Amino acid sequence: MAMTKNRLEAFSDGVIAIIITIMVLELKTPEGETIEAVLPMAHVFLSYVLSFVFLGIYWNNHHHMLHAVQKVNGSILWANLHLLFWLSLIPWVTSWMGENHFASQPVAIYGAVLLMAAISYYILAHALVNHHGVESSLGRALGSDFKGKISVVLYALAIPLSFALRWAALGIYIGVAIMWLVPDRRIEKILSPD
Amino acid sequence: MAMTKNRLEAFSDGVIAIIITIMVLELKTPEGETIEAVLPMAHVFLSYVLSFVFLGIYWNNHHHMLHAVQKVNGSILWANLHLLFWLSLIPWVTSWMGENHFASQPVAIYGAVLLMAAISYYILAHALVNHHGVESSLGRALGSDFKGKISVVLYALAIPLSFALRWAALGIYIGVAIMWLVPDRRIEKILSPD
Amino acid sequence: MAMTKNRLEAFSDGVIAIIITIMVLELKTPEGETIEAVLPMAHVFLSYVLSFVFLGIYWNNHHHMLHAVQKVNGSILWANLHLLFWLSLIPWVTSWMGENHFASQPVAIYGAVLLMAAISYYILAHALVNHHGVESSLGRALGSDFKGKISVVLYALAIPLSFALRWAALGIYIGVAIMWLVPDRRIEKILSPD
Amino acid sequence: MAMTKNRLEAFSDGVIAIIITIMVLELKTPEGETIEAVLPMAHVFLSYVLSFVFLGIYWNNHHHMLHAVQKVNGSILWANLHLLFWLSLIPWVTSWMGENHFASQPVAIYGAVLLMAAISYYILAHALVNHHGVESSLGRALGSDFKGKISVVLYALAIPLSFALRWAALGIYIGVAIMWLVPDRRIEKILSPD
Repeated sequence: MAMTKNRLEAFSDGVIAIIITIMVLELKTPEGETIEAVLPMAHVFLSYVLSFVFLGIYWNNHHHMLHAVQKVNGSILWANLHLLFWLSLIPWVTSWMGENHFASQPVAIYGAVLLMAAISYYILAHALVNHHGVESSLGRALGSDFKGKISVVLYALAIPLSFALRWAALGIYIGVAIMWLVPDRRIEKILSPD
Repeated sequence: MAMTKNRLEAFSDGVIAIIITIMVLELKTPEGETIEAVLPMAHVFLSYVLSFVFLGIYWNNHHHMLHAVQKVNGSILWANLHLLFWLSLIPWVTSWMGENHFASQPVAIYGAVLLMAAISYYILAHALVNHHGVESSLGRALGSDFKGKISVVLYALAIPLSFALRWAALGIYIGVAIMWLVPDRRIEKILSPD
Repeated sequence: MAMTKNRLEAFSDGVIAIIITIMVLELKTPEGETIEAVLPMAHVFLSYVLSFVFLGIYWNNHHHMLHAVQKVNGSILWANLHLLFWLSLIPWVTSWMGENHFASQPVAIYGAVLLMAAISYYILAHALVNHHGVESSLGRALGSDFKGKISVVLYALAIPLSFALRWAALGIYIGVAIMWLVPDRRIEKILSPD
Repeated sequence: MAMTKNRLEAFSDGVIAIIITIMVLELKTPEGETIEAVLPMAHVFLSYVLSFVFLGIYWNNHHHMLHAVQKVNGSILWANLHLLFWLSLIPWVTSWMGENHFASQPVAIYGAVLLMAAISYYILAHALVNHHGVESSLGRALGSDFKGKISVVLYALAIPLSFALRWAALGIYIGVAIMWLVPDRRIEKILSPD
């Protein structure tokens, strides 16, 4: 049933590619021909860069996880669509957060979307492990999924924090991104010893 | 002629991925930095969630049906494009229905697009069965296509109903979605006994 | 070098899928909750349907032609990009023609984009035949390319005609579409005798 | 690990296809039904054509380079995402440059995005060569990467020049595009002697 897995990958790649690219549309053409017309967009631009990195991380991790998958079923297809749903909200909260210069409530909502994406990724990972068995190469590769669990905890902490210390909440989001950017050797080691 | 089938799948995946993602663009950036600026968008958001689920169902079913396909011809390519045409109208009616808080006429038009999508899916399924024969694994898997037929009947009922009882019409749409979310064991059982 | 051909197909499919879907964004959400708010969009909608059919024809023909291709080179990649360039202008002229209720000048420009697309398709077809040889299955399948040549002539006639008799020009566009919708047995017969 | 390379290609193709197509959305529907309504868009249109060619070149070169790749790792995935990030900014600077009739500051920023894209392509190429070895077919095919280096130098020269002689800066961008359009025989010769 390799076809099914391939089509799941292709569809996910397509959706993530569109999400990551569509965010550019939120970057409105500056009104005026000078650099000064661009400077007020700095917040929107930084917000865009952060979301680009998050979506890149999700694509990267999704890619590694699916690489180890041998079979999928209906529940997995829907767990995957559930993840894509939350990722598809990222351009919208990115734009809202950027245009409001990282005000506390948009920062909280941004964190809520990241939290839901992290939870839906966790659900997908566990649906895959259940389908393959914890003793499968996929099950061993995911292991205790420490990074996945700590991400959920950190987002859940950052959301209330954003009302008091919004820059601290943003710092947590950036910290989670950096944690994931450090290559996840677990899956890579076990599956690709070449 | 596996290539042809693969390209039909890839193109359909691409179009459905774009449709499902483009709906996000209908979610306008809230004006104002507080949650109150987001609350008036609740109708648009619910409308978006409903359409996301419908498009997910179509992708899922399309994927299962194509999995069983061995060959395609010109009529099938056009039956498929016909389905994609109606699906491509979903973001437009989704936005119209949401922005008008599920008023009766947009709800009716939304149902009309769902009806046409269901009919075009039916046409595609039957073009595929004709090409493979009713005794093929595809023909047996689709069987009497009860869900497909009942969906068409329910949409046809919901459209006039939306002028009198628009919430009942919406309830029917949601009911049809739930009916399809219950995994379609027919095709899965016959084709993927692994 | 099958990889190269596959990637050319995948890229072309992606671009055509995006073009065909992005046209929906030109369908603005009606202002008002009644059917009357939708009726003024009839011209835009018809314009959209016509372009959907044209893009579907291009995808279909491109698909059949590429199916017979065995190798590609740099010139072919650029001939293909040249075709995609003209196709990518279709949403723009579609919207302009629809919003101006098929006024003569937008109808002429619409025809000019169709003409350039037809010419670039012709160039691509001949670059492919040159690379494979006229005695190749691709060369024999394309044959005299009557439909391709007559399309160019008809578009070239329709453009000046649109200033005098714009509905006749539109009629020619529709006629060309119908001519192509009649399945092209040439390639299908020679290559897929299954 | 062919799967990984294929998915990298598919994702990159998807993103570049979306970027190249989304630029059409920047072409606003002319207000008015005459050709005169279109003429003021000439700058935007030329800007669009230039960017279409640049994105086509990137797709073409990316395609050739990846063709020679046998394996990828985490650094390569991120080097590729880094390239896609800069490419995704092209529609935004294209629109800004066109709407301001090639004013000096937008021309400079446009060059800056091209410069960053060229640098990120250089980083990707070298990450790939490092992973395969300079004696690999990929390493030999890229060779001294003269075109890549000279492009970076030319963009770096054009950016300050655009403040004094903006047409000269634009001329340099066009010159670089032409240099790349001349087919790169290096990789094609070594890898595809068919």
